[in-house]
Parts: sequence; structure tokens; C-alpha cells
Amino acid sequence: MASPTYKYFLVTQPSPYVCHVQINRPQKLNAFYEEMWLEYKTIFDTLSHSPDVRAIVLSGAGDRAFTAGLDVEAASQSGILAQSAEEKDVARKATSIKRHVEEFQACISSAEKCEKPVICVMHGFAFGLAIDISTCADIRICSSDVKFAVKEVDIGLAADIGTLSRLPKIVGNFSWIKDVAMSARVFGAEEAYRVGFVSQVLETKQKAVEAALKMAELLATKSPVAVQGTKELLNHARDHNLADSLRYTGVWNSAALQTSDVERAMLSGLKKTKPRFEKL
Amino acid sequence: MASPTYKYFLVTQPSPYVCHVQINRPQKLNAFYEEMWLEYKTIFDTLSHSPDVRAIVLSGAGDRAFTAGLDVEAASQSGILAQSAEEKDVARKATSIKRHVEEFQACISSAEKCEKPVICVMHGFAFGLAIDISTCADIRICSSDVKFAVKEVDIGLAADIGTLSRLPKIVGNFSWIKDVAMSARVFGAEEAYRVGFVSQVLETKQKAVEAALKMAELLATKSPVAVQGTKELLNHARDHNLADSLRYTGVWNSAALQTSDVERAMLSGLKKTKPRFEKL
Amino acid sequence: MASPTYKYFLVTQPSPYVCHVQINRPQKLNAFYEEMWLEYKTIFDTLSHSPDVRAIVLSGAGDRAFTAGLDVEAASQSGILAQSAEEKDVARKATSIKRHVEEFQACISSAEKCEKPVICVMHGFAFGLAIDISTCADIRICSSDVKFAVKEVDIGLAADIGTLSRLPKIVGNFSWIKDVAMSARVFGAEEAYRVGFVSQVLETKQKAVEAALKMAELLATKSPVAVQGTKELLNHARDHNLADSLRYTGVWNSAALQTSDVERAMLSGLKKTKPRFEKL
Amino acid sequence: MASPTYKYFLVTQPSPYVCHVQINRPQKLNAFYEEMWLEYKTIFDTLSHSPDVRAIVLSGAGDRAFTAGLDVEAASQSGILAQSAEEKDVARKATSIKRHVEEFQACISSAEKCEKPVICVMHGFAFGLAIDISTCADIRICSSDVKFAVKEVDIGLAADIGTLSRLPKIVGNFSWIKDVAMSARVFGAEEAYRVGFVSQVLETKQKAVEAALKMAELLATKSPVAVQGTKELLNHARDHNLADSLRYTGVWNSAALQTSDVERAMLSGLKKTKPRFEKL
Amino acid sequence: MASPTYKYFLVTQPSPYVCHVQINRPQKLNAFYEEMWLEYKTIFDTLSHSPDVRAIVLSGAGDRAFTAGLDVEAASQSGILAQSAEEKDVARKATSIKRHVEEFQACISSAEKCEKPVICVMHGFAFGLAIDISTCADIRICSSDVKFAVKEVDIGLAADIGTLSRLPKIVGNFSWIKDVAMSARVFGAEEAYRVGFVSQVLETKQKAVEAALKMAELLATKSPVAVQGTKELLNHARDHNLADSLRYTGVWNSAALQTSDVERAMLSGLKKTKPRFEKL
Amino acid sequence: MASPTYKYFLVTQPSPYVCHVQINRPQKLNAFYEEMWLEYKTIFDTLSHSPDVRAIVLSGAGDRAFTAGLDVEAASQSGILAQSAEEKDVARKATSIKRHVEEFQACISSAEKCEKPVICVMHGFAFGLAIDISTCADIRICSSDVKFAVKEVDIGLAADIGTLSRLPKIVGNFSWIKDVAMSARVFGAEEAYRVGFVSQVLETKQKAVEAALKMAELLATKSPVAVQGTKELLNHARDHNLADSLRYTGVWNSAALQTSDVERAMLSGLKKTKPRFEKL
Repeated sequence: MASPTYKYFLVTQPSPYVCHVQINRPQKLNAFYEEMWLEYKTIFDTLSHSPDVRAIVLSGAGDRAFTAGLDVEAASQSGILAQSAEEKDVARKATSIKRHVEEFQACISSAEKCEKPVICVMHGFAFGLAIDISTCADIRICSSDVKFAVKEVDIGLAADIGTLSRLPKIVGNFSWIKDVAMSARVFGAEEAYRVGFVSQVLETKQKAVEAALKMAELLATKSPVAVQGTKELLNHARDHNLADSLRYTGVWNSAALQTSDVERAMLSGLKKTKPRFEKL
Repeated sequence: MASPTYKYFLVTQPSPYVCHVQINRPQKLNAFYEEMWLEYKTIFDTLSHSPDVRAIVLSGAGDRAFTAGLDVEAASQSGILAQSAEEKDVARKATSIKRHVEEFQACISSAEKCEKPVICVMHGFAFGLAIDISTCADIRICSSDVKFAVKEVDIGLAADIGTLSRLPKIVGNFSWIKDVAMSARVFGAEEAYRVGFVSQVLETKQKAVEAALKMAELLATKSPVAVQGTKELLNHARDHNLADSLRYTGVWNSAALQTSDVERAMLSGLKKTKPRFEKL
Repeated sequence: MASPTYKYFLVTQPSPYVCHVQINRPQKLNAFYEEMWLEYKTIFDTLSHSPDVRAIVLSGAGDRAFTAGLDVEAASQSGILAQSAEEKDVARKATSIKRHVEEFQACISSAEKCEKPVICVMHGFAFGLAIDISTCADIRICSSDVKFAVKEVDIGLAADIGTLSRLPKIVGNFSWIKDVAMSARVFGAEEAYRVGFVSQVLETKQKAVEAALKMAELLATKSPVAVQGTKELLNHARDHNLADSLRYTGVWNSAALQTSDVERAMLSGLKKTKPRFEKL
Repeated sequence: MASPTYKYFLVTQPSPYVCHVQINRPQKLNAFYEEMWLEYKTIFDTLSHSPDVRAIVLSGAGDRAFTAGLDVEAASQSGILAQSAEEKDVARKATSIKRHVEEFQACISSAEKCEKPVICVMHGFAFGLAIDISTCADIRICSSDVKFAVKEVDIGLAADIGTLSRLPKIVGNFSWIKDVAMSARVFGAEEAYRVGFVSQVLETKQKAVEAALKMAELLATKSPVAVQGTKELLNHARDHNLADSLRYTGVWNSAALQTSDVERAMLSGLKKTKPRFEKL
Repeated sequence: MASPTYKYFLVTQPSPYVCHVQINRPQKLNAFYEEMWLEYKTIFDTLSHSPDVRAIVLSGAGDRAFTAGLDVEAASQSGILAQSAEEKDVARKATSIKRHVEEFQACISSAEKCEKPVICVMHGFAFGLAIDISTCADIRICSSDVKFAVKEVDIGLAADIGTLSRLPKIVGNFSWIKDVAMSARVFGAEEAYRVGFVSQVLETKQKAVEAALKMAELLATKSPVAVQGTKELLNHARDHNLADSLRYTGVWNSAALQTSDVERAMLSGLKKTKPRFEKL
Repeated sequence: MASPTYKYFLVTQPSPYVCHVQINRPQKLNAFYEEMWLEYKTIFDTLSHSPDVRAIVLSGAGDRAFTAGLDVEAASQSGILAQSAEEKDVARKATSIKRHVEEFQACISSAEKCEKPVICVMHGFAFGLAIDISTCADIRICSSDVKFAVKEVDIGLAADIGTLSRLPKIVGNFSWIKDVAMSARVFGAEEAYRVGFVSQVLETKQKAVEAALKMAELLATKSPVAVQGTKELLNHARDHNLADSLRYTGVWNSAALQTSDVERAMLSGLKKTKPRFEKL
């Protein structure tokens, strides 16, 4: 894969089938503005269909932050949070806001829609949009120095880019979710691990990134039909009742089980060899 | 706010925008009967729309119990659990029961429907209806002496005032839920904390109430548009799939983001001052 | 109850109203093939309606495994995973697979559909299908030597007999679920307990089975109307939004509350005697 | 039944078990304002539980209108459509509007929630709110002079008291629904009959009311357990998928089929006599 | 296909790939009792997977009735509608009823679950269960002499074998549905055609059966992958929102479009020949 | 609005705020291939946000066809229906198909997602994709010469671009839907009108286009806040249960009712003048 060069993200391929996406605006604590989340979507849409990618690690460049969230300064100067000079009809302004929020949501959701597994590594500041982004990843791990906050209440709004929609489905402690989402308080790695927001804590950012890359390498050795099907079916199950989920699973596997990956994997299991799977 | 006086509840305002509701029938371990849950609904419906209230703490008066649940003695003398003298047609009796259960559910659900965040503090006995009540609160904390039980099976019935409907959505450990709900066994603070039923344990009731009041004070300093929107969106997310939740969020914020609270909060953030928000 | 004799399962009644089902093919690590899961369904369908059974313990015979999952050797020789000699049209083969998967799902789901509570005890190897089976049980406990794995990815497929559909609804840690389901890695008792996949860990298989039987005995002393209603309502709640769950609960209890079990249970509670409940 | 006297409605009992509710403000074309819809709810909530009522006819007093809808003059002077002098924060005003709309919806929905069948007879002007009201009824019939219009677009708003929510579920012609709802055009009895908005057209208002009363009398001779169960199950089916609907039906009838009405109805059927059913 | 001989049904194969199922108890107006609906399920489950069947016609033997519905006489002597001598606890009796209703529902639903299209031809009496049965068929046609009635209310119960669950999804005239379901009144072919309950009316039973067989022959010439996929996707769409339906369709066709039927059908279209499709 | 020039579509603005989109490949009966539906999406996405457009008419250029559907010749040479030379793993090919179908669906759905009302005028051949396209429009009208067919079964596949997903939600006659979707038979204007697939039939294409343009002009005079809100709320209602629909409506109007359009429309109504509304 000849990775295209992006403006706000560093996209590399540290090992076969593994892609590393780094938010790359460290001088601003990796804070986001509109141009960035549009590029973010481009990247994940591309990786989703790239046959050379089977697992993705997402992290933030620099020592200080995964991302400090929305670039509030930029946001207060333009965009929907800015005080516009022009007086607009409330309903018309509401339409603008809704369009903007929906586009923003679609950009951040691209990592969830991405067919490949995404492992998100968080360190330093992980505020506001950082949480929205991480809830779209499949696996969340962090370093022990991380400082999390569902920060939106502190700028006068309810988080609308996915945090409030996804947290109740990825963490099974509604009392804790309400606490951190309404108080906007900072919480750390240990607390995040205890309640199940992250599934692993490493000592340092470097170790966390290494662990994530190793995990990604492992996933990249597996049948991509099996791994990507598992991601799809788990996300579907999260949003559907049991009967629908079982039915969808049956239809999904009616094609997927016809893959040659099953035979290859079984033979490799018997022969104790490493299977090779065709690109997907 | 000139608090009205209630018969079974003590309703006070210990600090600005913070309301403290105490179940006040300590001589009977705060056990409930019909008149009480009707009053309970009146209180939460009133607080929901009161502009002087931004956060609510719910606790039980006295040292011995948050509430021991349904007043079984009263229930066995009148109401649907009583052995009625008159022989009634089964279908007609079923209609009476259904109407009664639905009204009872609506009363207890009033704390969940209440637009303001509700922090529930549990101590001593917290049996049966105590669990139904607490699952409607946003945040659950307890003292270390608490004795919880989903007690209904022990009086021959499946809990029908909300516990069975809400537990699977607020605690992510279905094996544990089935265990405590079917066995009716008593469990303590530590276990409740470990599985995520409560998000904080304090040494004594007094300390727990203090912690809850402090948390409520903190929430009361935040933008009420942001806090109440967060409660609404999290409760909506719990009950809807991702696409519906994101869509609802976009529409919700198309009005909410037009509030002046955003500008006030942002300015305060920059100036390190305390923002003041209009009543809601 | 005169238990019928089964070929692959040992079905005994160690105490009144308690039934113990053991997967009984220890020489093959209790691995399953088609004839077995058809018999499995027969057993649970029978127990579901048997008035002599009020609680069920499910475990695996022998020291080495609850079950090692699908008998891959058998599966690779016949059935949908086998390489069929005949070349079949893809769509027609898809129809065969879908029918097969749906029948397989229905067999394993029988323990969930069973009206009586099922306590699953896991020890030794608990791979692949073992997880599908256990997610249908109400309560999951294990011994400390257990080795769990959502193993399907390692044979080239996404788990389709229920694991991916049920895990997100019984464990509230989506990051962990994605991790174990996509990596197929082995995890142990402590990890399973921490994330809430099992609700109890015992030292040895023997102690775990004893604990399960004791728990089953306890459940068997309760009103079967109350216990079975609780199972039904919790499973319904898992799959429905709050309003639907409350409504269904009201209708359910409109008949169930007319049972004499309520009066019996209440009287026993007052008299401190053991209640006796009619068969169900 | 000693009917209470209402201010805006004429409530009579023309025959046993049949209740006739007339909107009674003919001098203003039966147009509604807030006090009226609050009373409307009181009436239907009362009838819902009254054992002396088994079928309800709803019509408009006077020759000219079922109802001309919202009293726009009144609405423009007070309430949420009025231009308020006080400048309010957009988000806070949104909260007021939402509360108002939800209360209004709940009032009009009371006829749908009412456990007894409601037959709505429309004549003359049936604009705006008239459509919202009629969509909550079970059966809609009209006289040939009726003039229908989903009129809200013509006062600058999307209908929010139920028309847009219910029309797609009660009329199976989405092209027609979009046409009349977006154009606000007037349509007549024949068109309404052809698309299935009404199920019967009578020559005059008088004949339509007579037909409705006769239909109500017929329904009142049937088992109230059967009729009211049918209303409940059809409304549930409208809002749920097939599996949920069948399941709910089974639970509902597990109590309802234990009624003595079945035996009475069967015997009467065999003996060709008129059955008598207990009050419900 | 060597058709097995059934006791209550006549199953023939009048032309290749077309199966004709006749309810065959004309001396009793084809009324059903338990043994019959169990056999009914066996037939449709068998046809569902039979490669020799691509379209099914369902009709009633004799001149007088499609079916008069439940055999009330038989039902009043045994089964859940019978007055049982033994006094049973209400909750326990409710459990029996629920199990019975669910089994009955499953039997009648077998025609809907059947993968092949089912054309139902109704004539003469088509009361009660006749409606439940016909709502499971894909296409409903009738002769002009038919007498329909949702008759259950007249025996004191709400229809629970599918009529109330399916009518709102197959007929877009909720006012009419409520009318016929609550009044139990008889309606004829013309009315049924006008509201869309049947899609064709023929003069006589014989002509209706001929039309149905001709339609079945036409369907049998088409690609079975395409026809059966269309049935599945339409039934899925009826029960799901748009996004879910589109998603399911995409996954379904990801296997189905790999069939050789597409090439065969296209070539035949170009060459104006009759395509031949492999068995399914 | 300076309309951009498109390759396959003629986009004009015949009157203020009204846009006319014509499928413009008449020499090929307006048949579609991939490049065309990508352009189709671009057009509707653009119109959706264009403040100069308030209503859209969609029709086909030329006398012979609205559109004959998919360009089967083109499709058989490239794309997913083509016989690819390369042998691909079934699961991998399934992934390609699914991606293709989803992109195709998204393109055609753009007219439904478009915030402005779309009136679809059909004449001549309207086969296959023509139906998918028309089901996304808000209002369907046709000329008397139209020839409709859900043609997909005749090329060996189940329609997957929306017809099967939307028909059950826009036409309330499931027997008819199954008939035309499984038989692929041609049906005409009168039949389409009778079952409610179209809501108006005009003598000729020219008259139908004129009627559509006149209807669009009418809609363009109305408050765009009201009209576009009505479209959104009706589409939402189609896909959600009643409670969700009412709740969403309340939140939607909490912003929309703050528009000045209400006052303008009311004043114009009183003054009998034509209101002018700001752009949206």
C-alpha cells in the first residue's frame, strides 16, 4: 500500500496488513476542527476497503494528548458554536445546526463503519471529542497517565458526536456513565479500566502503542473474513434484539462460510502451520 | 422556592438549585403504600418543571433503611395483593391488576421522567421497591452498611415496578442480575460496587448524603441546558439503536445549541470565572 | 420424574425439583456434533415443561472440559463446513447453510427458551460452542482452572450459534468483548469474573458443581410462578425498550399475581415456615 | 352512570353501555383551546375505566363542523404560538414548547388509550386538530358534506399532535398522505373513503351519528373482555413486529381466556340467546 | 415428489413444481381441531424444504367453506376453552394457556415461514381461524360467494392465532380493520377486494382455484432463488425499519446474486427462450 | 439558482423555488448505469440544501419511458452481475457485492433523504429500478399509458435497491405487493391508482408533468419550515412506533415553532394575502 499523505494525520504501515493512524497536530494537543474531521473520514473510508489493511491502530502524536477534543478557539470563531453576526430565524438556524451535527457525526462514525478492527490508544488529555472518537473504536486501551473527561457540559452543551449515544452500549454501568457525563469531571486510567471503558492499561504511551500494534499484528494473521465478520456481527448485535441478531448472523454466514479460509484455517490448525489468507 | 409540605416526604433545599427529597416514614423503615407513591409522583413532577431546582438528592430518613420496600402488611389488607372477599372473573381481575401495576409503575418512573438529575443515596435496608426506585435515579451511591435485595420472589411474585425492566440496562452483568433477581438474596455495598449497580460507596449514611449533596451542588453550577440535555439523551440512547440515537441527538441540539449558555460557559472557561445561567 | 436415558447427556435429579444435565462425552472433551445438539434440544424442551423440575444445573462430565466446542474433525467430514464433492450453485449452497445454522441456533437456544432457570458450570476447556451454550444459561459460574476462548475466528469463521448475538447483552464491556471475539485468545476465570462474564469462581470443578446445585436447591424452594416469571421478564427486558418492557410486565403479572403462591409466600414469611407451592 | 356535566362537551348515554361525547362549542365551529383539551382528556380517562361504558361515539355539536381545529385566534393571543413580549433564550423556549406539545399530545391521545372502542363521526369542517383527534379513534365514519384538511402547513407548522405520527399507520397510501399533509388541501368524503381514511360514508350528519350509535350498540352487546382485548391487541400490533405481537397476544390471552365470557358466549351461540356479560 | 398421504389434507402436485394443499374435512365445513393444525404444520414444513415445490396453492375441499374456523364443539370439550373440572391456580392455568396458544400460533405461522410462495383461495365460509390462516399466505384471492368474518369476539375472545397481529400489516385501512375485528360482522368478496384484504375476486370457487394454479405455474417458471428471496425480503421489510431492511437486503443478495440463475435468466431474456433453473 | 449542467439529467427551474429533474437518456429508454446513479445522488444532495429550491419534480425525458430500469446490457458487461473471468472466493465476492449494493442503495435513497418534497411523474416503461426510484419520492403520479413492473425476478434476482423495503410501507395491500413483486407482471395506471401506489392518474405524460409542476408550485408557496418538517416527520413516523414518533415530533417542533413563518402565515391567513417566507 502506497499510503497517501494526509495533512492532519500520519498514516503508516508498521507491519504487513497493519495500519497506524496518528492524529498529528501535537502543538495544539491534537485538537480538531472541521477540515480535520473531514480528512479523518477520508482516511477510514479508504482503509475500510483497502485489501492491504486488516487491522488499524489509532493514536495521537506527541506526548501530551490523544486529543484535547474540539478546538474551541477555532469553533468560537466560525461554525455553529460561533456567535453569528447575522440574525437568523430560529428554525432556519436549527436546520443549519442539524446538518452540521449530522455531517460531523458521520465523519467520526467512519471508524465504526470501517470494516477492519480499530484499536484506539489513549494517553495524556483525552477530552470531549476524544471520547466520541474512542467509542467508535472496537478496542480501547490507554496509558496510565491518561486524563479522560466527557467535557461538553463544561462548554454548555450535551455531547452530540456520539459519546452519549454509544457509552450506554459499550459500558455496563449506567450510574457511572451519568456521573461522568453530567459532571464533566476528569477520570483516570484505573477508573476507566474498572468500569470497562478501556480493556487494558499500559504504563506509558509507548508501551500502549506497542501493545496495540502487537494486538493488530495478531488480528492481521487471522482470516479477514472471520475477523471482519465478527466486527460486523457484534456491532449489529449491539443494536438489535436477539431474534434479529441470530437471523442476520445466519444470512451473513450463508455466504461467509463458503470461503476457502475455513479449510485453510482448519488445515493449518491440524498441521500447526501458519495459514495464508487471500486479500479482502 | 417555597417548598410545599408533604406528608410522607421531607423536601428541603439545602443549597441553591439543589433539592433534597427524603422518604420520611422511618418508624416503618420507610415502607411504601399507595398514598405514598402517589405523593412521590407529585413531588418529582413538580421538581421536574421547577426553575429553582437543578439537581435532586433522594434518600431515606432515619438510620435503619433507605426503604424496606412495599409495606407488605398494608398490601395484604387492601390492594391487589389482598385476598379479596368478592369472587371476581379472572379476566376482570386481570384488568384491575394491570391498571394498578401501570399506575404504580408511572409513579415510580416519575424520578426518571424528571428532567433534572437525581442522585439516590441508599443505606440500611434497601429491599424490593427500593431497587425499583433506585433504578430510576441517574446516579446510585450507598453507604457501606447497606443491605440490598430484589426481594419480590420471596413474596411469590416477579418484580413489576421497574427492577426487572431496568436492571439489564443499567448493570452489564446479566449472570449477576439473574442470580440476585431469582434468588432474592441479600447483597452488600462492595458487591453492588463491583458489578456497577452503585458507582460510589461511602463509609456511613451521613457521608454518603454529604457526597451526594456535593455532587448535586456541582451539577447545579453547570448549564442546566447541558445537564438536562445529557440526561435526556443518555436515557434515549439506552432505549434506541445507534442510528436513532444519533438522529435524535442532532434534532435535540438543533435548538439547544442556540442557547446563550454556550457563550457564557466558553467565556467563563477562558476567563476562569464562574458562569451564571438563566433559570430553566 | 423418571428421567429418560439419553445418549450423550447424563440427566439426574440430585434433589427434589433440581435437575443436573451433564454433557457426557468426556473421552472427546465433550465436543459436539449434530446428533448431540439435537438431543440437547430434546432435553431442555422436556425440562421446560416438566412440573417436577424447578432449577437446572448444566455441566460437563470428566475432569478436562466443560466442552471443547464443535467436534471439528466430525464437522470437516460432513456438514456445512465439509468440502463437498458436488459443485453447488452459490445461492443454493447459501440456502443449505442458512437452514443448517438456524437449526443449530434453535437447538442451543433451547436452554434460554427453557422456562426454568439454568445454572451453567464451566471448567477445563470451554472453547467455541462452549461460549455459545453458556450465554444461553441464566447464571454462569466456573472453576479456577477454566480456559475460555471464543475460538471460531481460528477456524476461519465468525461465531454464529449465539455468542456474538448474546455477549453484548450479558457483559457490559464492549472493548473486552471485541478483544476476545476477534483475537480468539484464551482467557481465564479471574478475567471472566472481573468483566462479568461469570458471576462466581470456585476453586475446583467439584466445588463449582456443589455451589451450583446448592443455588439450584435454593431456587427450587421459591415460588415457581415468581422465579419463572422473573426469568421471562428479564429476558424480555434485555431485548426491548423500557416502555415495552414495563407494558409486558404489567400484562404478565395481571395473571401471575392471581396465584395462590403470593398468599402462601406471605404467610410463610410471617410465620417463618417453609412455603409449599403447587407444581408448575 | 350519572354523567358529570362538562363545560365544553356534551356527554350522554343514549343506550345501555353506549356513551355519546359531543364537542360542544358550535358557535365557534367547535374549535379547541387549552382548557378544552384538558377536559377532553378527563372525559376519556373517566370513560376508559367506567364499567357502565362499552362503546363510545364521538361527534361535533351543530351543523357546521366536527371541529374547525385549533382556535387560532385564541392560540395567537396566548400559548406557544403567541408572540411573547419577553425575549427568551432559544433553548429555554424550546423546553417550554416541548412540554406544551407533549401535554397536548397526551390529551388528544386519551381517546386511543381509552380501553373502550371509540367511533368518530365527522361532518362539516374537519380541519387540523380534527384530523389529529380522528386518528386516535378506532373507527372513522363521515357524512358526505365533510371537508377534511391537514391544515397545519397553512399556519406555518408541521402537525404535531398526532396526525403525522398516526396517518402512515392507519392509511396505506403514502403518496396520498404526503399529498394532503404537505399541500394542506381540502378533500372530501369520497376521497377519504377511497383511500381508507374513513370506512363508511353516510348521507347526512344525522344518519352518520345514527349509524355510529347503532354500531356502538352492537359492540356493547359483545363480551367486553373480547372487544377491549381486540382494541388493545390491534393497537399493539400496529406498533410492533410480528414476533413481539404474537408473544404479547399469548400473554394477554393467558388471563383473558380464563373469563366466563367465553362459556357464556359459546352457550348463547348454541342456544341462540343473547349473552349477558359482567361489567368490566 | 411422492406426496405422503395426510389425514386431514389433500396434497397433490397438479403441475411441475406446483403443489396444491386442500383442507379436507368438508363434512365439518373444514373446521380445525388440534390434530389438524399439527398436521398442517408438518405439511408446510415439508414443502418449505422440498426441492420439487416452487409454489403452493391452499384451498378448502368441498363447496361450502374454505374453513368455518375452529371446531368450537371439539374445543368446548377439550383444550383450553373447555371448562376443566379440576380447579387450577390462575397463574398455572395461564401458563398452560400460553403454551397452548404459542404452539397453535407456530402451527398456523408455518405457511408464512414456508420458503415458497403460498396462494390462498377462499370460498364459502371463511370464519375465525380462516382469517388467521389466510393472513399467513402471501397472496389472497377469493370467489364471489365468500363470507368472511373475524368471528372470535362472538365466542368471547380476542383472536390470538395471528389475525390481530397481521391484519394491520397487510391491509392499509385501520378503521375497517377495527370495524370487522371488533364487530365480528360478516363481509363479502367485494368489500374484501376494495380494502385490499384480497387482491383478486373470481366468480366461482372453481375459477378461483384455476386462477391460483395458473399463478402458481407462472411463479414456478421463475428463478426460485429470485422468488423465494423476494418473499423473504418482503416479509422482513414488513417488520423492520427502512435502514434495517436495506442492510438485510444487501447481505441477503451478497450470496444470492452469485447464483447462475441471473445469467440463465438474462440469456433467456435475450434469446426469448424459457430458462431452466436448478432445484432449490 | 444557476443550475450546473449534468450529463445524464436535465435540471431546470421552470418557476421560482421549483426544480424539474429529468432523466435524460431517452434513446436508451432512460436506462441507468453506475455513472448515472452517482450523478443522480449528486443532484439530489445538492437540491436538498439549495435555498432556492422548495419542491422538485422528477420525470423521464422522451415519450417512451420514465426509465426502463437497469441497463442490463451494460450491467452484464461489467459490475456485479457480470460473469467475471477471475475466480474469486465466495466470501470475498460477497463483500464486493454488498459494498456495491449499499452504494447503489445510497444513491437512489438520496431523493428520500432530500429535505425538499419530490413529486415523481411516471409514463411509458417504468420497470425495475423505476419502481425503486419512485418509492423514494414523496408523491407518485402517472400518465394513463404507463407500464409498471417490479421486473427483477425476471432477471433472476430479488429487487435490492429499495422496492422490497419500501413497498410494504407505502402501499397497504400486501397481497397485491407479493403478487406483482413475485410474478414480475406488468400492471397499469388504473391498477396502480386503485391500490394506492400512485395517488393521481393523468391522461398523458404532458398533463401529468403539468399537474406535478402545478402541485410543486403550490408547495413552493407554503412555509418551507412547515413543508420540510412535514416530510421529515412523516418519513420518521413510517419507521418508528407511535411513542417514538410523538416524542421526536415534540423535539423537532421545539425549534421549528420558533420560526417567524408561523406569524407570517397566520397574518396572511387573516389578511388574505400571500405570505413570503425566508429562504431555507
